[in-house]
Amino acid sequence: MNKELLKQLLNYVANGKTSIDDAARDLMNLACEDIDYAHIDHHRSLRKGFPEVIFGHGKSAEQIVGIMTQMLRQELIILVTRIDSQKAASVLQQFPDAVYDPDARMIILKKQEPIDQGKGTILILSAGTSDIPVAKEAYLTAEAMGNRVQSVFDVGVAGIHRLFSHKTLIDNAAVLIVVAGMEGALPSVVAGMVSRPVIAVPTSVGYGVSMGGLTALFAMLNSCSSNVAVVNIDNGFGAGYMAAIINRK
Amino acid sequence: MNKELLKQLLNYVANGKTSIDDAARDLMNLACEDIDYAHIDHHRSLRKGFPEVIFGHGKSAEQIVGIMTQMLRQELIILVTRIDSQKAASVLQQFPDAVYDPDARMIILKKQEPIDQGKGTILILSAGTSDIPVAKEAYLTAEAMGNRVQSVFDVGVAGIHRLFSHKTLIDNAAVLIVVAGMEGALPSVVAGMVSRPVIAVPTSVGYGVSMGGLTALFAMLNSCSSNVAVVNIDNGFGAGYMAAIINRK
Amino acid sequence: MNKELLKQLLNYVANGKTSIDDAARDLMNLACEDIDYAHIDHHRSLRKGFPEVIFGHGKSAEQIVGIMTQMLRQELIILVTRIDSQKAASVLQQFPDAVYDPDARMIILKKQEPIDQGKGTILILSAGTSDIPVAKEAYLTAEAMGNRVQSVFDVGVAGIHRLFSHKTLIDNAAVLIVVAGMEGALPSVVAGMVSRPVIAVPTSVGYGVSMGGLTALFAMLNSCSSNVAVVNIDNGFGAGYMAAIINRK
Amino acid sequence: MNKELLKQLLNYVANGKTSIDDAARDLMNLACEDIDYAHIDHHRSLRKGFPEVIFGHGKSAEQIVGIMTQMLRQELIILVTRIDSQKAASVLQQFPDAVYDPDARMIILKKQEPIDQGKGTILILSAGTSDIPVAKEAYLTAEAMGNRVQSVFDVGVAGIHRLFSHKTLIDNAAVLIVVAGMEGALPSVVAGMVSRPVIAVPTSVGYGVSMGGLTALFAMLNSCSSNVAVVNIDNGFGAGYMAAIINRK
Amino acid sequence: MNKELLKQLLNYVANGKTSIDDAARDLMNLACEDIDYAHIDHHRSLRKGFPEVIFGHGKSAEQIVGIMTQMLRQELIILVTRIDSQKAASVLQQFPDAVYDPDARMIILKKQEPIDQGKGTILILSAGTSDIPVAKEAYLTAEAMGNRVQSVFDVGVAGIHRLFSHKTLIDNAAVLIVVAGMEGALPSVVAGMVSRPVIAVPTSVGYGVSMGGLTALFAMLNSCSSNVAVVNIDNGFGAGYMAAIINRK
Amino acid sequence: MNKELLKQLLNYVANGKTSIDDAARDLMNLACEDIDYAHIDHHRSLRKGFPEVIFGHGKSAEQIVGIMTQMLRQELIILVTRIDSQKAASVLQQFPDAVYDPDARMIILKKQEPIDQGKGTILILSAGTSDIPVAKEAYLTAEAMGNRVQSVFDVGVAGIHRLFSHKTLIDNAAVLIVVAGMEGALPSVVAGMVSRPVIAVPTSVGYGVSMGGLTALFAMLNSCSSNVAVVNIDNGFGAGYMAAIINRK
Amino acid sequence: MNKELLKQLLNYVANGKTSIDDAARDLMNLACEDIDYAHIDHHRSLRKGFPEVIFGHGKSAEQIVGIMTQMLRQELIILVTRIDSQKAASVLQQFPDAVYDPDARMIILKKQEPIDQGKGTILILSAGTSDIPVAKEAYLTAEAMGNRVQSVFDVGVAGIHRLFSHKTLIDNAAVLIVVAGMEGALPSVVAGMVSRPVIAVPTSVGYGVSMGGLTALFAMLNSCSSNVAVVNIDNGFGAGYMAAIINRK
Amino acid sequence: MNKELLKQLLNYVANGKTSIDDAARDLMNLACEDIDYAHIDHHRSLRKGFPEVIFGHGKSAEQIVGIMTQMLRQELIILVTRIDSQKAASVLQQFPDAVYDPDARMIILKKQEPIDQGKGTILILSAGTSDIPVAKEAYLTAEAMGNRVQSVFDVGVAGIHRLFSHKTLIDNAAVLIVVAGMEGALPSVVAGMVSRPVIAVPTSVGYGVSMGGLTALFAMLNSCSSNVAVVNIDNGFGAGYMAAIINRK
Repeated sequence: MNKELLKQLLNYVANGKTSIDDAARDLMNLACEDIDYAHIDHHRSLRKGFPEVIFGHGKSAEQIVGIMTQMLRQELIILVTRIDSQKAASVLQQFPDAVYDPDARMIILKKQEPIDQGKGTILILSAGTSDIPVAKEAYLTAEAMGNRVQSVFDVGVAGIHRLFSHKTLIDNAAVLIVVAGMEGALPSVVAGMVSRPVIAVPTSVGYGVSMGGLTALFAMLNSCSSNVAVVNIDNGFGAGYMAAIINRK
Repeated sequence: MNKELLKQLLNYVANGKTSIDDAARDLMNLACEDIDYAHIDHHRSLRKGFPEVIFGHGKSAEQIVGIMTQMLRQELIILVTRIDSQKAASVLQQFPDAVYDPDARMIILKKQEPIDQGKGTILILSAGTSDIPVAKEAYLTAEAMGNRVQSVFDVGVAGIHRLFSHKTLIDNAAVLIVVAGMEGALPSVVAGMVSRPVIAVPTSVGYGVSMGGLTALFAMLNSCSSNVAVVNIDNGFGAGYMAAIINRK
Repeated sequence: MNKELLKQLLNYVANGKTSIDDAARDLMNLACEDIDYAHIDHHRSLRKGFPEVIFGHGKSAEQIVGIMTQMLRQELIILVTRIDSQKAASVLQQFPDAVYDPDARMIILKKQEPIDQGKGTILILSAGTSDIPVAKEAYLTAEAMGNRVQSVFDVGVAGIHRLFSHKTLIDNAAVLIVVAGMEGALPSVVAGMVSRPVIAVPTSVGYGVSMGGLTALFAMLNSCSSNVAVVNIDNGFGAGYMAAIINRK
Repeated sequence: MNKELLKQLLNYVANGKTSIDDAARDLMNLACEDIDYAHIDHHRSLRKGFPEVIFGHGKSAEQIVGIMTQMLRQELIILVTRIDSQKAASVLQQFPDAVYDPDARMIILKKQEPIDQGKGTILILSAGTSDIPVAKEAYLTAEAMGNRVQSVFDVGVAGIHRLFSHKTLIDNAAVLIVVAGMEGALPSVVAGMVSRPVIAVPTSVGYGVSMGGLTALFAMLNSCSSNVAVVNIDNGFGAGYMAAIINRK
Repeated sequence: MNKELLKQLLNYVANGKTSIDDAARDLMNLACEDIDYAHIDHHRSLRKGFPEVIFGHGKSAEQIVGIMTQMLRQELIILVTRIDSQKAASVLQQFPDAVYDPDARMIILKKQEPIDQGKGTILILSAGTSDIPVAKEAYLTAEAMGNRVQSVFDVGVAGIHRLFSHKTLIDNAAVLIVVAGMEGALPSVVAGMVSRPVIAVPTSVGYGVSMGGLTALFAMLNSCSSNVAVVNIDNGFGAGYMAAIINRK
Repeated sequence: MNKELLKQLLNYVANGKTSIDDAARDLMNLACEDIDYAHIDHHRSLRKGFPEVIFGHGKSAEQIVGIMTQMLRQELIILVTRIDSQKAASVLQQFPDAVYDPDARMIILKKQEPIDQGKGTILILSAGTSDIPVAKEAYLTAEAMGNRVQSVFDVGVAGIHRLFSHKTLIDNAAVLIVVAGMEGALPSVVAGMVSRPVIAVPTSVGYGVSMGGLTALFAMLNSCSSNVAVVNIDNGFGAGYMAAIINRK
Repeated sequence: MNKELLKQLLNYVANGKTSIDDAARDLMNLACEDIDYAHIDHHRSLRKGFPEVIFGHGKSAEQIVGIMTQMLRQELIILVTRIDSQKAASVLQQFPDAVYDPDARMIILKKQEPIDQGKGTILILSAGTSDIPVAKEAYLTAEAMGNRVQSVFDVGVAGIHRLFSHKTLIDNAAVLIVVAGMEGALPSVVAGMVSRPVIAVPTSVGYGVSMGGLTALFAMLNSCSSNVAVVNIDNGFGAGYMAAIINRK
Repeated sequence: MNKELLKQLLNYVANGKTSIDDAARDLMNLACEDIDYAHIDHHRSLRKGFPEVIFGHGKSAEQIVGIMTQMLRQELIILVTRIDSQKAASVLQQFPDAVYDPDARMIILKKQEPIDQGKGTILILSAGTSDIPVAKEAYLTAEAMGNRVQSVFDVGVAGIHRLFSHKTLIDNAAVLIVVAGMEGALPSVVAGMVSRPVIAVPTSVGYGVSMGGLTALFAMLNSCSSNVAVVNIDNGFGAGYMAAIINRK
């Protein structure tokens, strides 16, 4: 429940559109609603500025629908991450207004378009074609949280002139997200070019000693550029979230 | 060389205070000055807003003095990190205005106090007494880069009421740095309380399966809070730098 | 074979209800019965207070039925752990009184309800929805061993007020089991709140550097709270067993 | 501050032995006393039944003396762990009543002998001569917390008859602590013999693939006996603490 | 080609049963026969006393049949290891005299029963029911190489009296193979009881920190008994082979 | 686009066979062509002497066809690596002249046979039958880049005379590629025999402590022979590429 | 106490040379003598054919002298392993007949020369000069246990002709010990040449990815030769012991 | 002994300058000279084109002098690697013509300047000041083997314009050695710019998750450029050797 919905609710009470009892029930649920298999943290959108996000992996379609139904009463936007296409199809039958992105494996359900809350543009760069799903998860998350987002894909360091041809975009970004697997070198190079914060996202793309993304992760943590911080392997959602928080007006 | 120094130099040329030849030599050096064992990146303070920082570990006192001498001609502030007390004493004989902090193992040499460039306050929290050196490195770095910084030490999760007694400080910070070793749980708890970006710094404090800080690092990357990004183990400098970049007006 | 069954058998002999030969055969089998693919340790329920538990993984339905048949002659309760639903269905055809829990992936077969053997209540807390199967395995094990058990699910540290709303339950527990994946921070926080023993159970829930549960395990072993001991990753059964042993009158 | 000291203080107030102001100052400090480099958690002995323990590693003798001085005003017993002989000598000059054990590397300072709080005897078994320091740390901790403790050293599994010659001791213990390095097999064997809880402590004793104790740790977590839980490598203190908590009346 | 077959061939040449040309071709092939995808080392049975063994994993049924056909001309016995039941069925259609063991996943094809070449009995002990496939691979290999073999399954250390009930068998063995997963403690205990060589085989049985068998492997290499040497994880074949070599008259 | 194609294009312009506009479009695309999901680096064959190679894993058949169509306008040869047979079948429907090798899992599409660019012969040795797919990937890559290539398979160190029977081939090679899994010993032995550069390729063949090829990789990096450098696990393509670059006239 | 000493003691009793009381005290101590910090396993030389060996690392010179004094009353030979030169000097002052080998870091104290108990010769091969200390520890152990031992040092696989120049020695050995660090390839090559058991000893010699000997260890466990079993890293003593046990008549 | 020295020796025999006996002794020693602690491989300079190199680590000054004395009779140049300054001083007392480089920690002893054997120039690039020792070891090795060598130090990717200012040098090199620690990104960027072979050398420079150089190593093996092969961590010698072999006319 964000501040606007809260004020609206209180207005409805003032205007008699909502009974005292109904308002009381909603407000009592505000802190933490227990639906047996999940404690929904409705208080979060007041405390943190964005509602709880549903991590779809390991939950059944029924559980996801249940949580969404509870949240929908109090939130303007709902995100479900890490949900495969089959499970998503079941969920979308219940929520025809929701949209599923098969690359990012996300469901987004908006009651209205998010208000622009960003100071500048968030730019997402990715090193290879296979890193695109993670980059898209970051893209959609940051956009849903009310930011202008741009992206350039497939600009890895093996042909570094490809990167330099986008120098204006890079220079103008307020926050950058750099997604790379394999040797994870791209964030170091990009961060060396700008004075803005760079969120680095290692991906599990690669084979042999890519170690499921550990090599890229460790390379990014060892970056000889200092304006870099790192999120978990394949965590496009976290990168988009963190970039949005940094970019918030 | 920052913008102010550059303009000053050009003014001196206009006023005849500096000869054309001397100005030319300084400007030619601007991109990258080669002193045999180091390529000093004078261009960096223009490009990135802060001069290159000298990583003291593995360099002799003579090398450090040499690099500082070159930099001093063009910069207002110089930082040397990871320098032990013995080596620092040799360096300070050459630069009596420099200050050495034995906890943070840093030398700071300022021609003038840094101008306040931050939007808000940076708050540094650390979990245990042994994490203080890393926290101080973050503190001094952020301060040197022109920020108001506050800190609370020894507020680990085993007595979580200690943390809550500082809730006002926590709520008012613009950016938070959270330093913790052992199980690395503090950033998750703190990030769950605020809507601001949290930079998490794992430390190598601990024994047995602390794995030299890997356990804390991985715990932080796995944080169930989303407004967290992580830097390398014991990298207080990087955390202070990243927080300053995020906090820049 | 527990003490009650042993006394009953001797009573039957005294009363002539059981022949000397039959009793002798049962007692000779008591130490260790060899059924080709398994040495059943019937002596265990005398020595340890609870019969051997069948680890279902890697055994065929036929082998499990065979071992259950042997055990049933001498035990009041039989537990099969880590058995999938398909294999369980085959087993239940032979033992219609047995019950299968698909979350915990356990079969429980009781001749009678277990007698309450516990000094106090065992409380099971879990951090996320995905940790519930492991928590349930602990729940059913402790209950089958004669304990009052309570549980609270989905109270992770990212919204720590959810945890505090259950403070009375937490304070009143005699033994606590805390189940968490990802960064594994919950046991440290909980153990810091109580003076009772906490058994921590890491789970393999997570991705990237959760390392199949190693990160949570190492975080728990590094807990800055001292009233914590840890069991293997996903080992809900072991946690329930250990808690029951500690809670025994 | 434990309950007895609290009641005593209130009695002194009632009797006029302590002024209102002095009592107020002590009670205000009760929750959390800040001495710059440490937040002392005086509330802990009320909440957890035993005062905070000082982890000596990485603290200077001065810091340790400072923390002890603060604690001494409110506690009956103080423990310092992981303190080397040289630092301990400095500390003992300030506290001549304190005792240092060079094997366990602990300082113990008691105002009075601890009251017996245990239901039964805690038995400590160790596998090799080199494991004795860790075993002694467990011994002294459990004893300081008010328990009867017994120990048998050097009973490793390579000559398992040595273990069996102590069977009566083993059968009579209420809680067992088993300390072992190298292959870490002793806890499995011991736990198979008893129905009581076993706290297993891996040590870093060994070479080659002992992996600094990881092999023993993992072996213990994989124990085929279920009445075993594990603490961190070389964590004799934690094992003694956990055993005392379990054994508490 | 073993010595007997070689002498037979030379006898046939002497008797005119085999032409000079045919004998020459066979003998030229003796060192190393190239069938495009494999260099068969026929020289091995002369050099090492047992023919090359076919590692079935990663080879097609056609390749296995091809290699067997070549070997059959010169060898008395052929072993194929790590072959699944489906592939084995295809192979057995071509070699109806061959036998497949589904537990050990081996094909054995004998022209005649192996001659007893062993000094004493090889005893195979295994810790759990799930270790039986590896134990059987060892059993069949040692038997095929001409040894008397005995086995006892499911005698893990959690109920150590089960082990002691087989003490006579254990004392009389000339070589022992001990197979165990999980904590891998059995070889240490057994080797402490005897003066004979023990070959330890770790298995990948277990979960969590069994680390795919690494924990058992490292525990065995760290054994505090000295008459133990170790083979690769799940390498029942290698253990049987090594034991047979040690036991050879 | 290689130099010959570039000159041909300019000739066509001179002769009027190609319009100025068409030539301009091709040349403008030369640096980097953006087809939404991929930045094709046409400049690479001028800069590096060989066109970009398509890494098939993680790309759809449609994406691969799209990239090939773009490249075909400017290149004489196209390689697709790590593409399974099903996806390859779809691609070959669009490019009937392309050839798929199921062992090496590569597609090769040549407009004309590659010109011989090598100084000498490249020899590929592999240790076991299961290493052949990686060896073939190296073979086809080196051949496609214009080299004479020879190979000897299945010459592992367990029967080292097999290796010595190919000594002439080994002595005459200009560059050697040595492919091995398991203990990875072959490159050390081969490199000790010759004065030419050896590219070592570890494979993921093996089980237990082969660690997915890490053991072979580390063994090769630790080679006591100095004329060895190493590529990633299973990276036959990289080995073939590197050998071709070294062998270039 | 070996069988001969036992018989001698009984003879002395029969002849009146030893009193009944003295003999009784010695025999009562036989099973397990407790000297506070160590349980000496005197029963071992009867059970295992060789007395317990003292692992010197982590024991003080005083403790070692104490254990030796106890053992000397009942054993003919005493070995102390892993003892540095300084500690050894202290021990030798008490036992002037003992000999210290600084390479192998062993003390050997013999009352009489060991009787030859071996069937054949044990041959020790080592790969590099730096592996010699481990090889010598194996040499001295096997010799002390009554074996003929031969050794060839510095025959690594980078110059494999050096190995072949010792082929006669290799062919005639009854048991082989092969010691190697770095890539650990020597045991595979040697085992491929013989039909006898090979005990492989990895050493921690090397740098970078030698991983403290793990690479050599894993390479040896992955050996493509089957007559190989492995002991712990740097465990020359264990290899010598195991080889002696295998070679025993 | 290289070819020239061999021909000279035969000439001396033809001219009567050397007696038949002396020549015979030298030639007999040629294959492999045994000086107790080392088998010197004199045959190597004929077989491999460069004499054996002495790995100084773990050898005493006396052993090194002994080996050098033997080699000096037959070789024109001797290299000792990984020797510290103290040991080097002892060696140089015996060989006053030898030169010690304290950065590279190498001794070089030349009878005459090496003849130029290279096709082109070898260029050595290093990322940071701390990587210089490894880069120098590569430099001196390649130079000693008869190559023109150039170097550029401190051109890491955080200020990538520093790298581009050396583009002409980079384009003109025949073989490149790229030395980098921390995130190891430099070889990927450099290899993307050239068509020549790049030998990548990871260094152990860094902290936290640099993992002693493993991160840089894995990043380099995962390079998205294909003209890269890698040597062991800190192995400047191996890189120089391999580059010299590749560059040989």
